[in-house]
Amino acid sequence: MTVRVDGRTPQSLRPLVMHPGYTKYAEGSVLIEVGETRVLCTASVEDRVPLWLRGSGQGWITAEYGMLPRSTQTRNQREASRGRQGGRTQEIQRLVGRSLRSVVDMKKLGDRTIWIDCDVIQADGGTRTAGITGSFVALAMALDKLGKQLKWERLPIYDYVAAVSVGVIDGVPMLDLCYLEDANALVDMNVVMTGSGGFVEIQGTGESGPFSENDLLEMVDLASQGIKQLVAAQKEVLGDNITARIGGVPHVRTRARYEE
Amino acid sequence: MTVRVDGRTPQSLRPLVMHPGYTKYAEGSVLIEVGETRVLCTASVEDRVPLWLRGSGQGWITAEYGMLPRSTQTRNQREASRGRQGGRTQEIQRLVGRSLRSVVDMKKLGDRTIWIDCDVIQADGGTRTAGITGSFVALAMALDKLGKQLKWERLPIYDYVAAVSVGVIDGVPMLDLCYLEDANALVDMNVVMTGSGGFVEIQGTGESGPFSENDLLEMVDLASQGIKQLVAAQKEVLGDNITARIGGVPHVRTRARYEE
Amino acid sequence: MTVRVDGRTPQSLRPLVMHPGYTKYAEGSVLIEVGETRVLCTASVEDRVPLWLRGSGQGWITAEYGMLPRSTQTRNQREASRGRQGGRTQEIQRLVGRSLRSVVDMKKLGDRTIWIDCDVIQADGGTRTAGITGSFVALAMALDKLGKQLKWERLPIYDYVAAVSVGVIDGVPMLDLCYLEDANALVDMNVVMTGSGGFVEIQGTGESGPFSENDLLEMVDLASQGIKQLVAAQKEVLGDNITARIGGVPHVRTRARYEE
Amino acid sequence: MTVRVDGRTPQSLRPLVMHPGYTKYAEGSVLIEVGETRVLCTASVEDRVPLWLRGSGQGWITAEYGMLPRSTQTRNQREASRGRQGGRTQEIQRLVGRSLRSVVDMKKLGDRTIWIDCDVIQADGGTRTAGITGSFVALAMALDKLGKQLKWERLPIYDYVAAVSVGVIDGVPMLDLCYLEDANALVDMNVVMTGSGGFVEIQGTGESGPFSENDLLEMVDLASQGIKQLVAAQKEVLGDNITARIGGVPHVRTRARYEE
Amino acid sequence: MTVRVDGRTPQSLRPLVMHPGYTKYAEGSVLIEVGETRVLCTASVEDRVPLWLRGSGQGWITAEYGMLPRSTQTRNQREASRGRQGGRTQEIQRLVGRSLRSVVDMKKLGDRTIWIDCDVIQADGGTRTAGITGSFVALAMALDKLGKQLKWERLPIYDYVAAVSVGVIDGVPMLDLCYLEDANALVDMNVVMTGSGGFVEIQGTGESGPFSENDLLEMVDLASQGIKQLVAAQKEVLGDNITARIGGVPHVRTRARYEE
Amino acid sequence: MTVRVDGRTPQSLRPLVMHPGYTKYAEGSVLIEVGETRVLCTASVEDRVPLWLRGSGQGWITAEYGMLPRSTQTRNQREASRGRQGGRTQEIQRLVGRSLRSVVDMKKLGDRTIWIDCDVIQADGGTRTAGITGSFVALAMALDKLGKQLKWERLPIYDYVAAVSVGVIDGVPMLDLCYLEDANALVDMNVVMTGSGGFVEIQGTGESGPFSENDLLEMVDLASQGIKQLVAAQKEVLGDNITARIGGVPHVRTRARYEE
Repeated sequence: MTVRVDGRTPQSLRPLVMHPGYTKYAEGSVLIEVGETRVLCTASVEDRVPLWLRGSGQGWITAEYGMLPRSTQTRNQREASRGRQGGRTQEIQRLVGRSLRSVVDMKKLGDRTIWIDCDVIQADGGTRTAGITGSFVALAMALDKLGKQLKWERLPIYDYVAAVSVGVIDGVPMLDLCYLEDANALVDMNVVMTGSGGFVEIQGTGESGPFSENDLLEMVDLASQGIKQLVAAQKEVLGDNITARIGGVPHVRTRARYEE
Repeated sequence: MTVRVDGRTPQSLRPLVMHPGYTKYAEGSVLIEVGETRVLCTASVEDRVPLWLRGSGQGWITAEYGMLPRSTQTRNQREASRGRQGGRTQEIQRLVGRSLRSVVDMKKLGDRTIWIDCDVIQADGGTRTAGITGSFVALAMALDKLGKQLKWERLPIYDYVAAVSVGVIDGVPMLDLCYLEDANALVDMNVVMTGSGGFVEIQGTGESGPFSENDLLEMVDLASQGIKQLVAAQKEVLGDNITARIGGVPHVRTRARYEE
Repeated sequence: MTVRVDGRTPQSLRPLVMHPGYTKYAEGSVLIEVGETRVLCTASVEDRVPLWLRGSGQGWITAEYGMLPRSTQTRNQREASRGRQGGRTQEIQRLVGRSLRSVVDMKKLGDRTIWIDCDVIQADGGTRTAGITGSFVALAMALDKLGKQLKWERLPIYDYVAAVSVGVIDGVPMLDLCYLEDANALVDMNVVMTGSGGFVEIQGTGESGPFSENDLLEMVDLASQGIKQLVAAQKEVLGDNITARIGGVPHVRTRARYEE
Repeated sequence: MTVRVDGRTPQSLRPLVMHPGYTKYAEGSVLIEVGETRVLCTASVEDRVPLWLRGSGQGWITAEYGMLPRSTQTRNQREASRGRQGGRTQEIQRLVGRSLRSVVDMKKLGDRTIWIDCDVIQADGGTRTAGITGSFVALAMALDKLGKQLKWERLPIYDYVAAVSVGVIDGVPMLDLCYLEDANALVDMNVVMTGSGGFVEIQGTGESGPFSENDLLEMVDLASQGIKQLVAAQKEVLGDNITARIGGVPHVRTRARYEE
Repeated sequence: MTVRVDGRTPQSLRPLVMHPGYTKYAEGSVLIEVGETRVLCTASVEDRVPLWLRGSGQGWITAEYGMLPRSTQTRNQREASRGRQGGRTQEIQRLVGRSLRSVVDMKKLGDRTIWIDCDVIQADGGTRTAGITGSFVALAMALDKLGKQLKWERLPIYDYVAAVSVGVIDGVPMLDLCYLEDANALVDMNVVMTGSGGFVEIQGTGESGPFSENDLLEMVDLASQGIKQLVAAQKEVLGDNITARIGGVPHVRTRARYEE
Repeated sequence: MTVRVDGRTPQSLRPLVMHPGYTKYAEGSVLIEVGETRVLCTASVEDRVPLWLRGSGQGWITAEYGMLPRSTQTRNQREASRGRQGGRTQEIQRLVGRSLRSVVDMKKLGDRTIWIDCDVIQADGGTRTAGITGSFVALAMALDKLGKQLKWERLPIYDYVAAVSVGVIDGVPMLDLCYLEDANALVDMNVVMTGSGGFVEIQGTGESGPFSENDLLEMVDLASQGIKQLVAAQKEVLGDNITARIGGVPHVRTRARYEE
C-alpha cells in the first residue's frame, strides 16, 4: 500500500480545522488550517457595486488573494512593494471569485459587493483550494449577518462549494497534496464542487507530461470524495442555525461579466 | 438535429486557415484564422534564459498574449496605456507557456528562451485555444530554423500540441464555440491535448451553474475529436520536412519552475 | 543616377496597398502596406468626450500607437508587460492625433471621441507616416458610417491628410525611407500635409549632423510630391461615395487643448 | 480617578501576549497581541545585502509593514492591488527598520540582510509600536538561529528595544492608546526605547492643537514606565537561553545610509 | 567654546533669507534660503476638496515635496521618471501638511484645498524644516489673497508655525544642522512649534545610538529659541498688513482624517 | 507696424538673462530667464554609460525635463505623484537630448553619461527652447570642468547649439512667442540650430490649420536671426576661457541609438 510523505493513504485529506470569527471586524471570517497550510478568509460587505453593474439591481462577489512574504520556505517579495500582483495571484483570485459566485443569487444581494480576502499565513500546498473552502464559510457568515438586517428568511445561497487538489505521483492518484507532493506530481488538478456533487471548476495541468482520460476520471472521483468531507466540515462549523437556511432556493442564472 | 448559430453541427470545428511565415522577422510565425477569430502567433529565439535558470544548462519557453484594442466588439483600453496586464491576459499567457513547454525538451534548447507572442487581430471566441494551436506551428518553425544552425537531426519536440474550446449550450455539448455561443454557454471548457491524445490542460468553468461528470466526459470526447483535426492541420502547414523530425525522442522530464 | 537599396529612384514611393475593412468590428479600419511596413489602423467611435471637454459640445480625436513585439528585427519588450508606453510611442501617438484633428471639425462630432489605433504588424521604416496615411482612411470610413446615422450631408472633414518621410543619404535627398536607409540618413524628416498642399506637421532631425536650408527645401519638395500620390491612393480606396462628401466645408477653428 | 474606555487606569498597558514560533518557515516569528491589536512579526535571513552596501562587509536590517485588508473597521484596499504602498505604510516601515538597526551590530551580520515583516491581522490602535516590540523578539530568535550556525558566543545585539504609544485625552496623559482613544487624543506620541532606558525614536504630533513641554515630559515618563514592562515581557518570551547572550557587547557605531 | 564647521556657535541659526512672491502664478510663494539650503514654497488655492471631505463644509491643506535631481551632491534619480515617490518624500510631505493644518481653521476654508509645494533647489541639510517655515509664509500670503475676495476680516490662522532641526554632535547639542553636521549627528531631531511656543511635531531619531531625557530637553530648548527667531522673520516678511490679521481667533478643533 | 502683447516687434527676442553656477553641486548649471520664463538647467557627470553602450568606448548625453507644479497658471499635478511622466515631458526630454548630442563628440566622453536636467521654475512660453539654450551652457561648463581633470586641450564640442520658437499670429510671423501668443498662434514651430547656422531640429505644427511653404521659410529665417543672438549670449556667459576651446574639432559621426 502506498504511504505518503506524511503517513496518509492516497485517499485521505489532511487534518482540517476551521476557526470561525477569527477576526472581529469582518462580517464573516474564518482561519482555515489544512495540515500546515493556514489561510485567513474574510468576507466584507460593501454597499455598492462595480461600475459596470450600477443600476442593474444585481450585486457582486469579488475575491482577493495574498501571501504573507514569509508564508513560504523562502521569503517572497511583498506584492505591494513590487507594485503589482503577479499572474498566479490574479489567476487564484479570479478562481475564488467565480467559485463563490456560482452558488449565490446575485440579484438578492442588491446593490452590494461582498469582498472576499484570502490571506495565506503559512503555505504548505493547496492554498487556493483551502481559500475557497474557507471563504465559503466566511461568506455564509457574512450573508447570515446581512440577512438579519434585511429579514431574509433563507440565505441567497443555492448550495455549498468547496475545493481540493488531486494529483498523480509515481502513477498513484492522490488527494489533497502537500507542498512536497505537489512539487513531485506529474499531473496536478484543482477541483471545485458543490455540496450536491456538481462541478464548478476543474483545472488540470500536465506540464511535466500529458495525462490520460483514465487519470482524469480517477482524480475527479478522488476529489469528489474529498469534497464531501469538506462540505460536512463546513456544515459543522456554520452550525444548524445557518445551514438550515442554505439551499432550497431556485437557481436563478444571473449574468456574469462576459469573458471569453 | 441541433443547428448552431453559424450553421455548424455540434461536432464541427469552424473553418481553419493558417498563414505560415506571416511576418518576416520572427524565427517562426503564423496567422491563424478560426472562423472569424484571427491571432498572429510568432516565436522569437533569444540567446539567454531567465535569471532563475542561469547556469542550469536548460532553456525556457515563455508566452505573451495581447488583444489589439479594437479586436473586440467594443474597444478595450490598451493594456500598455493602462500600465498593466489584466488578470485574464496573465492567465492566458501562463496557459500558453505551460502548454508548449509540455512537449519540448528544455535541455536541448540550451541557454535560450523562446518567446511566443499571441496577438489577437480579431476576436470571435476561442482566442486562447487558437493561440496555442497557432503557437505550436510558429514554435516548430523556429526550432526548425534553430536546428539548421545547430545541426540537430531531430527537433526537441516530443509531440504536437493543440487546443480547442467546448461547452454545453441548452443541454447540448458543442465543439469550438464562437463568441455568441460562448456568451450563452452554461459550461465552458478549454482543452489542450497532444497529438497522441494525452491531456495537457483542462480548464472547465461552470460559473452559471455546476456541471455533471457526464457533461465532463462528453465535452472531453468532443474536444478530443476536434484536436485530432487541428493536429492534422498543423502537420499539413508544417510540411513533411518538419513533421518528419518531430516526435520519436524520449520524453525527458525537465524541472519546471515550481508553483503550487 | 542614384539607385536605392531596393532599386527605387530617390523620388519614388514604395509600393502602397491599402486593405479597407480589414477588421469587422471597428467603425473604420484599413491595413496599410508601404513596402514591407504593415500597419493596422482602426477608428472607433465612443459616445463620450474626455473630462476636460465635457459640456463644450465639441468632440475629440485621439490616437494610440503600438508595435507588436516581433514587428521588428529583434523582439521588443511588450509595453503592456513593461507597464508603460515609452517616449517614442507617446511622441508618435501625439503626432497622429494632431494630424487628424487638423482636418476635422470637432464641433460636428458632438459629444463623441474617435479613437484611432495604429498597430504595427511589421516595421520596415515609416511606421508613423504610414499610420497617419492609413488612419485618415479609417477615420473617413468611421465618419461616413456615423454620418449615415446622423444624416450628415457632408462629412465634417476639411481636407485629406497624409504623411511621408524624407531624408538625406550620402548627400542625396530621398523620399519614403525604408529601415536601412533611415538608419543611414544624416537627416530624417517626417512631413504631414493636406490634400491641398498645406503643411500640418514638419519634424526634421539632424542628430548626426546639422542640415542646411537648401536640404530643408529639397526635402519639403520631395515630400510634397509623395503626398500627392498618397492622397490619390486614399481617394481611390475611399471611393466616390465617400470622397464626394469630403471637403467643401468652411474651416472652423476649434480650440485645441492648450500646450506650449 | 480617570477610568478609560476599556477600564484601564491611565498608566496601564493593555494585556500583552506573544506567541513565539507562530509560523514554521521564518527564522524568527512571533504573533504579538496587545489588547485586540494582533500583528504577525517575522524575521527572515537573506544571504546578500542591498546594492549600496556590497563590499562593505556590513549587513543590513530592513522592515516591511502591511495591513490585511479587513484588519480594520472598514475594509482598506489591498496595497498590492492599488499598485503601491501608501505614505503611512512607508513611514512605519522606515520607523521599524531604524528602531531595530539602532541596537544591532551591523558589522557582525556580514553580507546578510534581515527582513522584518510586520503584518497586521487585526488593528485596534498601536500597530506600529506592537510591530516594533514583536519584531525585536522575532529578530532575536533569528539571530539566535544564525548564531548557532556561525558559532557566535554572544548575539550582536547591544540592547532590547520596544515601543509604545502615549497621548493626552481630555487633559490626561494616557499610556498605550486603543483605537477609540487614539481617535480622540489631542496629542499622540510614539516612543521607542532601549532596555536600559535610552530613547531611540520619539514622534509626537499635535495635529489637533499644540502641546506643552509639560505634556511632553509627562508622556515621555509614562512611555518609559510602559516600555520597562514590555522589555520584561520580551525577556520572558525569549527565555534565558537567548537573553543570556544579549547585551554586554561594545556599541560599535556603523554607518547608516545617510539621509537628512 | 565649540565652533561649528561653518563658524557658528551651537546656539545660532544659519543666515536666513526669504524672497516672497518669487513666482508669479501661485497665490502665495516664497523662496527660502537657510544657509545654502534653498527651497521654493508655493501655496495654490483649488476650488474643491478631497473626495472624503465632500459635503463636510470643511476645507483641506495638503503638501507635496520634491528635490530637483541635482539639488544634492550626487544626482538623485527623478522621482517622476522612477514612477513613484520614495518613503522619505512621503514622510516629509505628510509632516508639512500636518504642521500647517494644525494652525488653520479648516471650516473657514470652505470647499477649498490649499496645495503646498516645497521644491528643493539646493539641499544642505534642513530642507524639511525650511519647507515648513517657508510654506507658512506662502500659505499666509495665499489666505490673505483669498481673504480679499471673501472679505475676511481676520485670516483663519490661529498662530504662526515654523520648524528647525537640532542634534547632538560629539556630545554638544546644536541648532539648525547643515548637511555635514547632520551626517555626523548621533541624534537628530526636527521640531515644529507655534508662534506662542506650543509643540506641533517632535521627531527625534537616535539611529546611531540612543539618547537620554537630558539630551531631549536640551534639544527641545535649543529648538524653542531658534523657532522664536524664525517666527520673527516670518512676521517681517509678511508685513504688518498680514500679521495684523493672524491669530486672535478661537481655536476650533476640526476633524482630521483619522490615522492611527 | 505690428506691436506685440508685450510691446516687442515681431523680430525681437524677449529679454534674456543667464545666471551661471546657479547651484553649487552640479558640474555645470545655469538659470536661464527668457522674459518671464525661468528654467534651471544643470549638467551632471556620471561615470558610467547606459547598458546598451557598455563596452563601446562611447559616452552619452541624456536629458530630463520637469515643471514645478505651480510653474503654470493653474497647478499641474506633480508627475512624481501621478507615477509617470506625460507624453509632452518625454517628447521634450528626447528633443533636448538629441539637440545636445548633435554637437558633442561622444567618443571623447569615454564611459561617461552627462545628465541634463531642465526644471521649469516659471513657464511663460518657450520652456523647451529656453531649456536647450540654457542646457548647452551648463553642458559646456561641465565639460570644461571634466576637461581640467582629463587635461583636454579642446572641449569635445563641435559647435554651439541654441533654440527658439517662432509662430504665425494673425498672418504675421513672430519670434520667441510668450504664452499668450503661443495660445493664439495658428502655426507654432520650434527651431534648434548650431552656431554656424545649421539646422539640428525643426518641429512645426499647424494643428489649428495648415501652413504654407512661404510661412515655413519666413519662420525659419526669423528663427535663424534669433538664434544668432542666443549664441552670442551663450558665448558671453561662458567667457573667453571656455569659448576659446569650443569648435575647431573634426565632426566625428558617432552612432546614435537607432530609432525610426
